[in-house]
Amino acid sequence: MSGQRPGGRPTLEAVAAHAGVSRATASRVVNGGDGVRSHLVERVREAVRDLGYVPNPAARTLVTRRTGAVAVIIAEPEIRIFSDPFFSRQVRGISKELTAHDAQLVLLLVEDRGDYDRIERYLAGGHVDGALAFSLHTDDPLPAITRRIGMPTVYGGRPGWTAGPGDHGQVAYVDADNRGGAREAVRYLLEQGRQRIAHIAGPLDQTSAADRLSGYEDVLPATAPSLVAEGDFTEAGGARAMAELLDRGERIDAVFAANDLMATGALRVLRERGRTVPGDVALIGFDDAEQVAERAEPPLTTVRQDIEGMGRLMVRLLLGTLDAARDGDRTVPGSVVTATSLVRRGSA
Amino acid sequence: MSGQRPGGRPTLEAVAAHAGVSRATASRVVNGGDGVRSHLVERVREAVRDLGYVPNPAARTLVTRRTGAVAVIIAEPEIRIFSDPFFSRQVRGISKELTAHDAQLVLLLVEDRGDYDRIERYLAGGHVDGALAFSLHTDDPLPAITRRIGMPTVYGGRPGWTAGPGDHGQVAYVDADNRGGAREAVRYLLEQGRQRIAHIAGPLDQTSAADRLSGYEDVLPATAPSLVAEGDFTEAGGARAMAELLDRGERIDAVFAANDLMATGALRVLRERGRTVPGDVALIGFDDAEQVAERAEPPLTTVRQDIEGMGRLMVRLLLGTLDAARDGDRTVPGSVVTATSLVRRGSA
Repeated sequence: MSGQRPGGRPTLEAVAAHAGVSRATASRVVNGGDGVRSHLVERVREAVRDLGYVPNPAARTLVTRRTGAVAVIIAEPEIRIFSDPFFSRQVRGISKELTAHDAQLVLLLVEDRGDYDRIERYLAGGHVDGALAFSLHTDDPLPAITRRIGMPTVYGGRPGWTAGPGDHGQVAYVDADNRGGAREAVRYLLEQGRQRIAHIAGPLDQTSAADRLSGYEDVLPATAPSLVAEGDFTEAGGARAMAELLDRGERIDAVFAANDLMATGALRVLRERGRTVPGDVALIGFDDAEQVAERAEPPLTTVRQDIEGMGRLMVRLLLGTLDAARDGDRTVPGSVVTATSLVRRGSA
Repeated sequence: MSGQRPGGRPTLEAVAAHAGVSRATASRVVNGGDGVRSHLVERVREAVRDLGYVPNPAARTLVTRRTGAVAVIIAEPEIRIFSDPFFSRQVRGISKELTAHDAQLVLLLVEDRGDYDRIERYLAGGHVDGALAFSLHTDDPLPAITRRIGMPTVYGGRPGWTAGPGDHGQVAYVDADNRGGAREAVRYLLEQGRQRIAHIAGPLDQTSAADRLSGYEDVLPATAPSLVAEGDFTEAGGARAMAELLDRGERIDAVFAANDLMATGALRVLRERGRTVPGDVALIGFDDAEQVAERAEPPLTTVRQDIEGMGRLMVRLLLGTLDAARDGDRTVPGSVVTATSLVRRGSA
């Protein structure tokens, strides 16, 4: 603990020491919070005057909900955000919960890696109190940024990156039980008598895709690699992966796709190649976000995750962190993994 | 012009007067801008010291691109924003142009009117330099808010509200030639020999919907009101309006729908009722945003507007305004109306 910032300005710690109070108490006084006895308030104010303490906006953001705003960062190009109902559903949950707490949702789009410099400047500028980030890839620069600027952040989806020195092995996240959900889907296909079950995986630099592949492999440990093709969570990617599986000449009587959009792409290719669903090939997706699984013909059997609920949980974890930080508590909140459930429709 | 703010703090005007320079020059020095001669810089700095001038963050935002961020406010519930490709296309244009200027896009969602109090606080908090707003309804509170807090704003779509006292009759906006585009669509249907042309209008509290209805009426001034039904720019709304038109028992051989989503809803109802398109009923939409008109069966003839280009234009107008304001120029930029074009596909 040092008494001065690099620029020579006194720190809040110095103020607290000078006033003979805890850092949390000094923080509460400086940030206009109540619940501090008046003689302590006076001592802290004297210390502020004596030392010439100037609150640092970025630092203040850490210890109070000063701006009333929370950044939501989706690490995907805008074209994917608007075409995959997963994102709108997640944003809806976040929006509802932030509104319930009278906090402003500030959505930051990331088109490519070059955008992160600007996003770092915005986050460091004290314009939001915390951040929610989802759909990260393993090499995403965002975790290093939020760590560097000390921005309280909750992640959607289990982080796949190596924890940094500031993480103490802990990162707060909300995720679905991707692996368990995948296992349930594949077991269901087995129960239906399917014997040659292929998997269309998502991009394997995302933990959701990797975990769903792991669930598939848990149930079918001896599966030939030729029954797995990697897509990119888009409909076009699912179609390409399905075509690739068929072109390999493998006998396939079922497909588990790692999301519903890829499943609809696969459905289209199966139909074009003269295969009936579920007659020749049973098909299961993942997500059960609106307007995809139910609208497919036949409607998709899929693994439902509570996408909106996960968005709400992310907000609750973050706001809890901010409130705790205001009271001087820097504990990283526990992470939450929510259950999935198989929804049976016509495709399997 | 007063020398002190209500709180007793000196204003920028007082600094300028003290230094014997214009307000614009004082502003440029205070905000770190260049292009001011060094002896004037020194005089302004002395005045700042003499008077104890502290820049007001909200006021600074007005005169310089301080935060490097621009708010985008879409006055529609999140569920419409994500389901209508018009919005993603507009956001894409805005995002590309802001990125080209290294400015951060900050998307603020509006679920209902209650959200505007919070949005006003955020905008007034100095977290963005300007705002872009679109899809406003005539009674939208946003124009009054941006006027009250002096936030430079460019609107997408011709504003339908009554200009306020601060507007001087001028509001900057970018719009498509909705009326001209509608006229072209209806004339094309007449040229194809259609005689009973119905119109599915958008919500008439939006100028885009009202202008498209006006274009329809320009060409068919003697049309019976029973050939017009109002939808809400959604697919479901278009289906309801189409069913309403058919239930009225009118003989209809063509439909001009005010957007593509409503046209696809109309297409579905026509098919359900045993009418062929374009055989029995020719159909034209509006927008030609991706993934709707082209994907319909048959693909939709539609009025294309350059949605992405309009988004880019909004950004250019706003950044031009901010740069002008930094130089002391408070002129409201001119508005722009972009051309539309009829795209001929299978439905008409």
